[in-house]
Amino acid sequence: MADDAYRSAVIDLLGALAYGELTAFERLAEDAAFAPTIADKAALAAMAVAEYNHFALLRARLEILGAVAEDAMEPFTAALEAFHERTAPSGWLEGLVKAYVGDGIATDFYREVSAYLDDSTRDLVLAVLEDTGHSAFAVDRVRAAIAAEPRQAGRLALWGRRIVGEALSQAQRVAAERDALAALLVGGVAHRGADLAEVGRMFARLTDNHTRRMAALGLSA
Amino acid sequence: MADDAYRSAVIDLLGALAYGELTAFERLAEDAAFAPTIADKAALAAMAVAEYNHFALLRARLEILGAVAEDAMEPFTAALEAFHERTAPSGWLEGLVKAYVGDGIATDFYREVSAYLDDSTRDLVLAVLEDTGHSAFAVDRVRAAIAAEPRQAGRLALWGRRIVGEALSQAQRVAAERDALAALLVGGVAHRGADLAEVGRMFARLTDNHTRRMAALGLSA
Repeated sequence: MADDAYRSAVIDLLGALAYGELTAFERLAEDAAFAPTIADKAALAAMAVAEYNHFALLRARLEILGAVAEDAMEPFTAALEAFHERTAPSGWLEGLVKAYVGDGIATDFYREVSAYLDDSTRDLVLAVLEDTGHSAFAVDRVRAAIAAEPRQAGRLALWGRRIVGEALSQAQRVAAERDALAALLVGGVAHRGADLAEVGRMFARLTDNHTRRMAALGLSA
Repeated sequence: MADDAYRSAVIDLLGALAYGELTAFERLAEDAAFAPTIADKAALAAMAVAEYNHFALLRARLEILGAVAEDAMEPFTAALEAFHERTAPSGWLEGLVKAYVGDGIATDFYREVSAYLDDSTRDLVLAVLEDTGHSAFAVDRVRAAIAAEPRQAGRLALWGRRIVGEALSQAQRVAAERDALAALLVGGVAHRGADLAEVGRMFARLTDNHTRRMAALGLSA
């Protein structure tokens, strides 16, 4: 953390992750309101609580690093709010697909970035990226709904594509605005990051994983 | 718990409380979306998590009593959903007033009922009724908002009255439908409950406390 540019990049990264967890909490809690049964409602509420606990861990680390957590999150609120406004689910299934596909690609991205972090920061990032049980839950419920009503698959496939499109467009916006964070990724900070060819391969991996997730839901990517 | 009527009444009571905590979780999480700052958003999310933890305690006790938690909650979902639909806040301040005034009167009511419970159930009920910090938070934010813009006081006072009116009307509906629960309150179960004169005094206490809460917010009841 002696390197100022690296410290700035880490604070950016933890701030973005923290606000992401806080909005994930809110979004899962909203989805709970759509749940068709009390048991599903309670299951989503439990996942929302797990996201909040991740948020609290990230906030604590930001404070240990001497950052004001709210200030660290602030630069990322606009992009995250814009993403959620443009992808407001109109019901239970859209909410499940959004969380599975959107969190999936975000998680993959942060995991890739974690390769360029010091051990202590990487351990924290990997811990808060741990699946809260939502993936298996979403796959189960979405597959069952499509089996019961196959014509839903087309609409949900389009919806999944929209989620990824919006996620990439907001990620681009953040990368353009936050130099330290972008530099961490592309090797500008003490040569820790990837070169551009590696960034290209990373995007290929993100896309492959996305296709796999859509297939797990029974949807074409 | 050897007395079947008493056991039914306790399962009803814990079921109603559990679903109340689960909807309190959802509602506080929704209010977090209205929060004017990230710090306020995080504070409301923490309170929502505390409500979820209360819900989990009640669900565990229902299971210890041999009840299916979802079945125990089911009879109370309609009244609670109707209450929340009819009192959907249109913004941050209405959400704070609703939670403070609505949870306040519900908490007072459950505290009164707890006098007629066995020690173990009473300890659990009092534990889950513990204030999650929301009251001080709501009083602080609402008083500050009224100080900044005094003409808001009239609208919020009307809103507080509407909350109590809807809460009483849904409570009446539940009492009419759930004999065991009503009997617990008015002395029908093994003479544990209150007589009608005591019920009258209880309502007077609930009303007094409500007036005190409205005054704490800087509003007329």
